[in-house]
Amino acid sequence: MTVPQRVSIVTLGVADLAASTAFYESLGWKKSTSSQDTITFFQMQGSVFGLYEHHALADDAKVSPEPFVGGVRGFRGVTFALNVDSVDAVDAMYAEWVAAGATPMVEPHTAFWGGHSSYVADPDGHLWELAFNPYAEFDDAGNLVLAPAED
Amino acid sequence: MTVPQRVSIVTLGVADLAASTAFYESLGWKKSTSSQDTITFFQMQGSVFGLYEHHALADDAKVSPEPFVGGVRGFRGVTFALNVDSVDAVDAMYAEWVAAGATPMVEPHTAFWGGHSSYVADPDGHLWELAFNPYAEFDDAGNLVLAPAED
Repeated sequence: MTVPQRVSIVTLGVADLAASTAFYESLGWKKSTSSQDTITFFQMQGSVFGLYEHHALADDAKVSPEPFVGGVRGFRGVTFALNVDSVDAVDAMYAEWVAAGATPMVEPHTAFWGGHSSYVADPDGHLWELAFNPYAEFDDAGNLVLAPAED
Repeated sequence: MTVPQRVSIVTLGVADLAASTAFYESLGWKKSTSSQDTITFFQMQGSVFGLYEHHALADDAKVSPEPFVGGVRGFRGVTFALNVDSVDAVDAMYAEWVAAGATPMVEPHTAFWGGHSSYVADPDGHLWELAFNPYAEFDDAGNLVLAPAED
């Protein structure tokens, strides 16, 4: 297959590399020694690639669907979801992100789809959904596991 | 650890869900049966999380660093990298993305960091870097493997 079904790297553009690096490290994350003065890398685990309508996605994070114009209220059309395996884990994780300096966007709540969801923004306004999905499973590595692909 | 070092889902906001779903399927990707009428999921493999200066990242994709205002030339401050294991694989993959309707942004070339890099944009202008990094390794699952985390 010429195009592997894969995301190898997600790179965020940030205003202040040192500050953003410090922010993620303050969550307890360890950066890779592949990092350089001009770029920071963290080894991540598996991911899922989703498509969702622009306005619906903005509404989920309670931001304007208007084009991104700086700050945390404009919408880039991209969110990152970090899933954990319980309601309590979401609440604890949300508190830790906010304590690390993330902007609270949507408090943890029962989402319309039955899960427990919240949103925070990193120093550049990149949106992270912190969530528990009772209908999803994790593999041993902590990757979210979906139903199999269609034949 | 309260905050696992993990990206569970990357979700793109798209203008036309059916068209964008068809675009990715035309790459040969198989969507998960977890998909619904309002959302499309593809099971992906591991990812790497990076931080890179906003203007440098825009320059890499040859787009304006100005805030995203629609189309493919505005910059959202986010790119997705899909890495493969040879120069030829990049060239073939680039051609397949373009054949599928992606907008060519940067032709495959030898990048300043020694790899083979190119950029395309999906139907909503989301930027994908298609690349080969001769200094990086893959695990058996095709995930990009970085040097270990710092102690």
